[in-house]
Amino acid sequence: MQTILSPEDYIKGILQKDRIILSKAITLIESTKKEDEAIAETVLQACLKTKNTSKRIAITGSPGAGKSTFINAFGKLLLDNKKSLAVLAIDPSSTISKGSILGDKTRMEDLVSNEHCFIRPTASNNHLGGVGRTTRETILLCEAFGFDYIFVETVGVGQSETLVKNMTDLFMLLLLPNSGDELQGIKRGIMEMADIILINKSDGENNVAAKIAATQVKHSLHLFSASEKEWITQVLNISSLEKTGLDTLQKEIDSYFLKMESTGFLKHNRNQQDLFWFEESILQELQHLFSQNTSIQSVKTSLKEKIKNNEITAVNAAKFLVQKFMEK
Amino acid sequence: MQTILSPEDYIKGILQKDRIILSKAITLIESTKKEDEAIAETVLQACLKTKNTSKRIAITGSPGAGKSTFINAFGKLLLDNKKSLAVLAIDPSSTISKGSILGDKTRMEDLVSNEHCFIRPTASNNHLGGVGRTTRETILLCEAFGFDYIFVETVGVGQSETLVKNMTDLFMLLLLPNSGDELQGIKRGIMEMADIILINKSDGENNVAAKIAATQVKHSLHLFSASEKEWITQVLNISSLEKTGLDTLQKEIDSYFLKMESTGFLKHNRNQQDLFWFEESILQELQHLFSQNTSIQSVKTSLKEKIKNNEITAVNAAKFLVQKFMEK
Repeated sequence: MQTILSPEDYIKGILQKDRIILSKAITLIESTKKEDEAIAETVLQACLKTKNTSKRIAITGSPGAGKSTFINAFGKLLLDNKKSLAVLAIDPSSTISKGSILGDKTRMEDLVSNEHCFIRPTASNNHLGGVGRTTRETILLCEAFGFDYIFVETVGVGQSETLVKNMTDLFMLLLLPNSGDELQGIKRGIMEMADIILINKSDGENNVAAKIAATQVKHSLHLFSASEKEWITQVLNISSLEKTGLDTLQKEIDSYFLKMESTGFLKHNRNQQDLFWFEESILQELQHLFSQNTSIQSVKTSLKEKIKNNEITAVNAAKFLVQKFMEK
Repeated sequence: MQTILSPEDYIKGILQKDRIILSKAITLIESTKKEDEAIAETVLQACLKTKNTSKRIAITGSPGAGKSTFINAFGKLLLDNKKSLAVLAIDPSSTISKGSILGDKTRMEDLVSNEHCFIRPTASNNHLGGVGRTTRETILLCEAFGFDYIFVETVGVGQSETLVKNMTDLFMLLLLPNSGDELQGIKRGIMEMADIILINKSDGENNVAAKIAATQVKHSLHLFSASEKEWITQVLNISSLEKTGLDTLQKEIDSYFLKMESTGFLKHNRNQQDLFWFEESILQELQHLFSQNTSIQSVKTSLKEKIKNNEITAVNAAKFLVQKFMEK
């Protein structure tokens, strides 16, 4: 028999840094059960009010760029420096129920057993509440828990990056040192989002190629307009294997946060993100109610057929359908 | 005193290729008056049913790439070949009421006086009906009129390109021959959308630079994944001034349409576009009704304040607001 926790149990557990309760709270917000929803709302509201400020960092890169190994190496450095860390791995293609784990725990051997590190896969998609909701709420829980750093790991294939950009403070991109091909598979839009670009695997026989790659990336960044927040994208050579460049990276991250705090960008950015998600959530909620309305769905199907046969314009069909919806 | 036209007057006029009526019909669909809306709907419904198939071509490029001069030169070639042409110029930054004309008629001197050519500015934004609506509907009217080609001209700064991509069959990008800088100002996402890329001003002393630019563009396109429709983006050197490369361009366009018709992509694509606009229009209509609801707006403002002060999550605020909306 499973004990049902009250909202207060969750809140107290999180504030007391109880990792098992944190895990359960994340499961709670991922739940699609109606009865869990109200509890989740209360827990999240309480977490909102804590004044912790984690450094929220997005980490993205192509499959094979070595994200998990990098997170293991860099995470260990942070832990050695007495920092705490949550790693949330987003899988854009699957919901939690499928249980796909992007953040490969076997490659994070230095982190998994550390009590100051918390690793959790998270779904970018949830049929209740829409895209990105559970990840954002998981970030909230982790921040209330008091982690110094929250890494949000995602595959840089262009689907979930904009979402992750909108829930983090710093956007980091991992590239491989294959000179000439270094942009392959990475959309330019993702390059443009990056605050820090890491040329990973800058070690051994890759060393020369990695330096060239860094120069090329810097050069190609010149083609983009400067960012509004007055930060020049940093391009660093690192090796997760030889653990080189990681100290420099930590300094860069610290100086980024120092600057963004002093200019007020950090606060402004989070506020803008919240308002963005508010507007998004309104739309999602409207869409949700709309899609829940079963009598509308059959009308919609027949309208699609009419559109296909050029019997009605898309706009008129939409007006008709929404009118039906509002009449109920 | 102005004569008020009936829906039948509009429809008859358009089908009889009366350019003045076409102009008036476009003004009608741009109108935000309630009484015009019903007439516009009837006219559009009738136009939908005509079986004409214009070649819908998006033409984009940075300011200064020579779009108007190109359209004049290429349009003249088409007219000389007994084809008819509508040129719709989208200004992303202004609504029609501001009267901004992107398609510079003074640079289209060979087209303006030709009875088989129709030039019209169009707004990408309209406070009724949302982004892109009037342009799409203008395309419908022009197609019913029976133009062989419909050019939709837009500035390649990344705001309206996705929209235009979603209402045309072929996407054409104009670049300048400045070797090395040829990508400047053009977002990579726009490069990726292009079916045909034209290096304009490939003439006189630009000739060598233009060839190099073409090679560089071809090279950089290799970094992108192949398009689903099995078409390799063509990169052509042209000169609007010396009228070189334009015959080749017409052949490329023809072979594109031949191929896309034979594979069924053209029809499939238009159908997908319609369904895309249907979904978009549903959202726009829901948003429209939502924003029209004044009592909701004051609640929304106070919720934004609460979000800013971390008193409520974006999701909960949205749920609360939408609930209020549906109660009315």
